[in-house]
Order: sequence, then C-alpha cells, then structure tokens
Amino acid sequence: MTATRVAVCRLARVVGEPAANRAASLAAVERAARAGARVVVLPELAVSGYVFTDAAEARALSEPLDGPTVTAWAEAAARHDVVLVAGTNERAADGALRNSAVLLDASGLRAVYRKAHLWDREKLFFAPGDAPPPVVDTAVGRIAVMVCYDLEFPEWVRLPALAGAELLCAPVNWPAFPRPEGERPGEVVRVQANAMVNRLPIAVADREGPERGVDWVGGCVVVDADGWPVSRPAGPGLFLADLDLTTARDKALGPRNDVHADRRPELYA
Amino acid sequence: MTATRVAVCRLARVVGEPAANRAASLAAVERAARAGARVVVLPELAVSGYVFTDAAEARALSEPLDGPTVTAWAEAAARHDVVLVAGTNERAADGALRNSAVLLDASGLRAVYRKAHLWDREKLFFAPGDAPPPVVDTAVGRIAVMVCYDLEFPEWVRLPALAGAELLCAPVNWPAFPRPEGERPGEVVRVQANAMVNRLPIAVADREGPERGVDWVGGCVVVDADGWPVSRPAGPGLFLADLDLTTARDKALGPRNDVHADRRPELYA
Repeated sequence: MTATRVAVCRLARVVGEPAANRAASLAAVERAARAGARVVVLPELAVSGYVFTDAAEARALSEPLDGPTVTAWAEAAARHDVVLVAGTNERAADGALRNSAVLLDASGLRAVYRKAHLWDREKLFFAPGDAPPPVVDTAVGRIAVMVCYDLEFPEWVRLPALAGAELLCAPVNWPAFPRPEGERPGEVVRVQANAMVNRLPIAVADREGPERGVDWVGGCVVVDADGWPVSRPAGPGLFLADLDLTTARDKALGPRNDVHADRRPELYA
Repeated sequence: MTATRVAVCRLARVVGEPAANRAASLAAVERAARAGARVVVLPELAVSGYVFTDAAEARALSEPLDGPTVTAWAEAAARHDVVLVAGTNERAADGALRNSAVLLDASGLRAVYRKAHLWDREKLFFAPGDAPPPVVDTAVGRIAVMVCYDLEFPEWVRLPALAGAELLCAPVNWPAFPRPEGERPGEVVRVQANAMVNRLPIAVADREGPERGVDWVGGCVVVDADGWPVSRPAGPGLFLADLDLTTARDKALGPRNDVHADRRPELYA
C-alpha cells in the first residue's frame, strides 16, 4: 500500500474580511503540508464568507479566477507541492457569480467546478453550474470535485465515480440542523453512503464558527472506500487521513458482485 | 398527526423446513397485529430459507403465488386487517425462480415485486426482475416494495419515491460483514441516506440466526422521513414504529429547497 495523506481544514471566517480569510487559508495549507498532506481541502467560499446580506455584497466579495485568492492558492500549491481543492466566490467571464471550487497542483489551476445544486439563499446570488464534476489526473491519483449540497444527490456522485475518480474532495458549508442525541450529522451519514455505494473515498472540509447568526456542523471528515470515517484531529482545524487511493479502483463486493457493474441503468430512467 | 404503527419482524428460519417457517411467519404477523401494527414487514425469502445448496434445492423450496405460503399470508392479512409485505421464493409462470416480495392487504394480493439486483449466489438460482418497485395505494398510505440489495442502488429508491411512495418496505437478508467498533451496520447507514435524500420513511425486516454457516446483521429497523431510526423492540423479534406517513408528501427543506425538485436529471445521464 502507498498511503496518500489527505488533509481537510476547518476554517473560521469573517464575512467581509477577505484579506484575513485568505491569509488564514494559506496558513491552513502550510500547516497541512508540514503535516505531510499531499491533498488539502478547504471549505466552500473559503475567503468571501457565506452569509451575504444581499447580491451587492456577494458581488463585492467575488473574484475572477485570476484574482488574488486563486493566485495565492496556486502559489501555495506549487510551493508545498500539494493538490489543493478549495471553494471560491467566482465572478465568471460572463459576469455571473458562481459558487465554485478549484483544483490546483504544482502546475497551477487544473480544474474549476461550479456548484450545480444551490442551497437556500445561494439561489439569490449565484448561477448554477451545468457541467459534471471534473475528474483530474494528479500526481497522487484521480481526484474529483463537487460542492456541499451537490453531495445530497447520489446521481451526481455517481458521475465522477463511474468516470474513475479515486477520491472525491468536497468543500462545504454545512449549516447546523437539530438531530437526535448521539447521532452523527445527517450530512456525514449521506457522505458515508455515497462512499459505500461507489467504493469511493470522500474528503469533506467544513467551516466553523457562527456567521451572522448561522451556525455550522463543523463536519470535517474523510471516509474511506468502505464509507467509514478515518480522519483524525491533528491540530487546530486540521484533520488528517492516510488513504490508499488505489482501493477505489476495485468495485467488487465479493466474488459475484460489483457496486458499479451490478447497476441496471436501463431500468433507472 | 395520524400515526400508523409499522412492525418489522426478525425471523429465525431453518432452510428446508417450510412448514415450520410458515407457521413462525404467521405467528409473527399475529403478534404484530395484536401490538397494533397496521403494516407488517417480514424478511426476504421468509419461508424457504436462503442458503440453498444448489439450484435443485432452491427449486424444491419455491412456490407459485397461489401456493400455501402466499395463500396463508393473504388469509392472515385479511384476518388481522394489516398490510403485509414479505419475501417469497417464487416459482413464476415462466418456470423461472424469482426472489420476490408480495404486498397483501385485507382484499388479497395487491402487488408482486421481483428483486432486480441479485446478491452473490442468488445469481445461480434466481432470474432478476425487470420492473420497478410497485407503489400501492392502501388504507394507510402509498406503500412501495423492494428487496435487500436493491436498497444499495440509490437510483432504484428514487423511482418509488418520485412516484409518490409514503413508506418503502424492504424484506432483507443482510449477511454480516465486519465493521469498526461502535459503527452501525453499513446497510443501515445506506437505508438512512436513502430515506434522507427522498424524505421517505423506510421499514426493513431482516432475519436472524446462522444458516449453514452464514450469519446475519439482524438489522430490523424503521427510519423516518429524516432518516433517523425510530423503531423500538416490542417483544421477541418484533420492532415497532409509529409514523405519520403524510410527512413523506412534503419534500421541502426550508423555504427554497426540495429534495426532489432540486434534482437536475437532465445532467445525470
């Protein structure tokens, strides 16, 4: 087994303080890299904050992909030789805002994903993406990207899984909902199931701390191809997991079953 | 709220002893009805047993739908005025064996479902079904049926959910797999996720006791529309839950989201 160390980073942010949030995100990448991570995942909208007052504020806190945030992340990915997946408030070439995630490595920006399933007030600020999650060949394996509420649609997770992803990285901002005593957050249960039915490890980076009255699950987690949580806390806001990403290539369940080959898509329409 | 009491029954069986297994299944229905259940779910292949030596034994333990097992279940459903969902080793009109589940109520046999996703050695004995899970209007609500490994395919659960099911009943035989200390069986995690992403309660009846060296999860569970386990033990092999099945009609998640309307099926192909 060749283990790949995957880091998911829980960031606190202050909406409207992009410079401070950007610095915090870069510090998180450096801590993760020093801890041996080869893949680092940051939350959704990691620098702009999430709870915008109105569309004007969302726009004021957006950046193009050649803006200061993604530029700084690209430099950090190169400096530390990591695959970095992080969420950004993207002002796209067409002028629309997108709730996007970028995948960067030592060679620069490799992929941009635009969230296709928008949550709650995001619908007021962002245009949904129309393209499936990218699957990117990196030095450590084939890595896919989606964002937060996208994970609630098993059909969406199937797409990169069927396309050969070996790890799915998901920046999220999971707002906290009540749950029965002793239960894991439902969001984590759904991530586990998505991993299990695809034999696909999933790495989720959530945010922490209240923002304008909204609280968050703080649900950073990495689950393995069997869907079991395997990440461990490794310092403030840092969670690490060592994964053999090649396990995701084997979809067999015993001698006669296969989580993908046993599908009957002709019956699913 | 009008609560409907749902019973899931954990049966031990002896392969090759259909008369004893049938009697045990009828006793379970009676216990459940006496406890106030209006819906009763029995395990997969509830009378034939599961671990067949060979195709000849599987065939010898099969029955047509007008055989003694389904006939006795229909009488029990009428006598107790319950909706009964149970798994049977069906010898179909075309001569093929099917791993089927029947839905019966006071008026008799309402639907037959043939398992579409076959597990392991079932592929040696059974022909897979090609029809989607039925959704049946009953006195207590719209009830759908599927069997065991079918639950591992979120696309399959979507079909009855989108068709308006208010409760999904699933006879299963869940073979036991190792899992980390303190974790729920993965099968239950996947049932929870299926319920959550559809806001659809699910009732699962599993078997118990080893059979020819195979052990089982014994994972009888009812989860509500939020995916949380709500069943409680109520006597030997009997688990009860009181569900307001009308909750399944409301797919909203807050003011701007809906687990079904937010799907983007045009992107899922």
